[in-house]
Amino acid sequence: MKKFINAADRVVEDSLAGMAAAHHDLIKVHYEPNFITRAGGPVKGKVAIVSGGGSGHEPMHGGFVGRGMLHAACPGAVFTSPTPDQMLAATKAVDGGTGVLHIVKNYTGDILNFEMAADLAKEENIHVNAVVTDDDVAVQDSLYTAGRRGVGGTVLAEKICGAAAEAGADLETVTALCRKVNASVRSIGVALSACTVPHAGKPSFTLEDDEIEFGIGIHGEPGRRRAKHASADELAAMMMEPILTDLPFTKGDHALLFVNGMGGTPLIELYVLFRKAHAIAAQHGVTISRSLVGSYITSLEMAGASISLLRLDDSMTKYWDAPVVTPALRWGA
Amino acid sequence: MKKFINAADRVVEDSLAGMAAAHHDLIKVHYEPNFITRAGGPVKGKVAIVSGGGSGHEPMHGGFVGRGMLHAACPGAVFTSPTPDQMLAATKAVDGGTGVLHIVKNYTGDILNFEMAADLAKEENIHVNAVVTDDDVAVQDSLYTAGRRGVGGTVLAEKICGAAAEAGADLETVTALCRKVNASVRSIGVALSACTVPHAGKPSFTLEDDEIEFGIGIHGEPGRRRAKHASADELAAMMMEPILTDLPFTKGDHALLFVNGMGGTPLIELYVLFRKAHAIAAQHGVTISRSLVGSYITSLEMAGASISLLRLDDSMTKYWDAPVVTPALRWGA
Repeated sequence: MKKFINAADRVVEDSLAGMAAAHHDLIKVHYEPNFITRAGGPVKGKVAIVSGGGSGHEPMHGGFVGRGMLHAACPGAVFTSPTPDQMLAATKAVDGGTGVLHIVKNYTGDILNFEMAADLAKEENIHVNAVVTDDDVAVQDSLYTAGRRGVGGTVLAEKICGAAAEAGADLETVTALCRKVNASVRSIGVALSACTVPHAGKPSFTLEDDEIEFGIGIHGEPGRRRAKHASADELAAMMMEPILTDLPFTKGDHALLFVNGMGGTPLIELYVLFRKAHAIAAQHGVTISRSLVGSYITSLEMAGASISLLRLDDSMTKYWDAPVVTPALRWGA
Repeated sequence: MKKFINAADRVVEDSLAGMAAAHHDLIKVHYEPNFITRAGGPVKGKVAIVSGGGSGHEPMHGGFVGRGMLHAACPGAVFTSPTPDQMLAATKAVDGGTGVLHIVKNYTGDILNFEMAADLAKEENIHVNAVVTDDDVAVQDSLYTAGRRGVGGTVLAEKICGAAAEAGADLETVTALCRKVNASVRSIGVALSACTVPHAGKPSFTLEDDEIEFGIGIHGEPGRRRAKHASADELAAMMMEPILTDLPFTKGDHALLFVNGMGGTPLIELYVLFRKAHAIAAQHGVTISRSLVGSYITSLEMAGASISLLRLDDSMTKYWDAPVVTPALRWGA
């Protein structure tokens, strides 16, 4: 196992310290329990959004803390849910008096812990809503999940809802918007290689030289099937078919196309996938009016990619375009 | 070889088509010869900056085309210099009547071809200056280079000089600034694994399970030595030592610290490296007043990282902070 780490049990804290040093103008890192907030204090009178999950998916979620997106993020150990005390401390730190939205990817541990944190926050008179994201069309249930997994659509939900909160929308409005984004987005992933969790020290699965895992989860959970490796265009078609048919997307839709790298895939390949996914959308009469290409929800150094497609309405488009100032997503301000 | 590609001889064009589809609001892709310009036409009365080099280093340089940074980029085949006709066409397309600066990484092929393009442009009455970047302290000469190689410092030079050109600085001023940035920055890289050039179909070198290449080039060229893999903190110290002593950086300096991934290294590890590099700079009395962390000059899917350190003055800091709107770097506007 060759990684830029000091020890398996120091990866998360060392990385947080690096983030704090690199982005002290944008974020503040809190330890014991670990969470990240914006550099400023809570924003009085505005809804706050908190997310979190296992580490190893960077920049998600810590890289999305900042003006126009998240107010706080709770990083767990690698591929391990954060604990309720992290979520509670983050929730208390960012509550501006008008309620907090928890955006929770659909993994059993995350849901249980965020529910417990919400219960504890309510005892302290903080109004908490939660939205569970479950945009992955690959499998119905999986290793860590009852129902579908929350994947790339979560990035889009956090951006759009963060902008709505910034604009002053109230908790019920931001919550409803988050549910709508989640209901309007579909994703699927493909792995060309496994990743190695530092504590495990060896790859979480093995693939033959000509084999891929179709429908991979962000923790290396099995997908739909092992398949033969194919051209980028064939893989893009394999991925777009279940995405387009599941919602379903229909002629005349406007959509945001997000091609995401899993951590070990170079940008040049993501653009090759984007080209074909964009063309397939056009063939189905779906206009790609917004785009995102890059590694935003990763699985350590896994070689692989996911595609997410979000049906946009005017409100989502407006909030997508709104200014965002975070370590990983930044535009318009 | 498992990659998201269609064929080795289509990688560059397919990727350019993906970029064009994803970023049509920011850039325009031209084919035969291949180059990328800003979506708008030439900016009359302002100096234009053109860069280029082999593909496989994405987002460099195409991802840096846009307001506040490059006016055009010329992508060659993977790890292969672009040709003079690309550079000439790009230069003619973006000249705003007040001259064009070519920023050229120090590789023999790039230099020869940019020189030829500059000569041809001068015949068409376009005033061209060129600055060669050579910030890599690893080796004096190398496989493709007489003198030091141009690496991560080039990203910083393109951002800073792009902002100066945007602000209306004349050609001699932008050229002098580019030379100053190059003279003020030092870089070095480490590889944990090789990358596979699509045409070659196999890794460009092999490393043992406990081995790294210290001083790696961005095309997998040999560095200073093979070394035993070590902790992130030890590797950061090995990298910072030659950087700090070469310029040399001295107590009281303000600097920009850039920790760059080579394409296959996850962000969580880059922050672990950043933490220690930042601490070492502080121990030497160097204040890190600006930061950049991410994969901006890559070697396909190579696992590895480079560190660049740029001594800042007020002018460079101002231009670093200035708005930039490109596919890969975006802030302040």
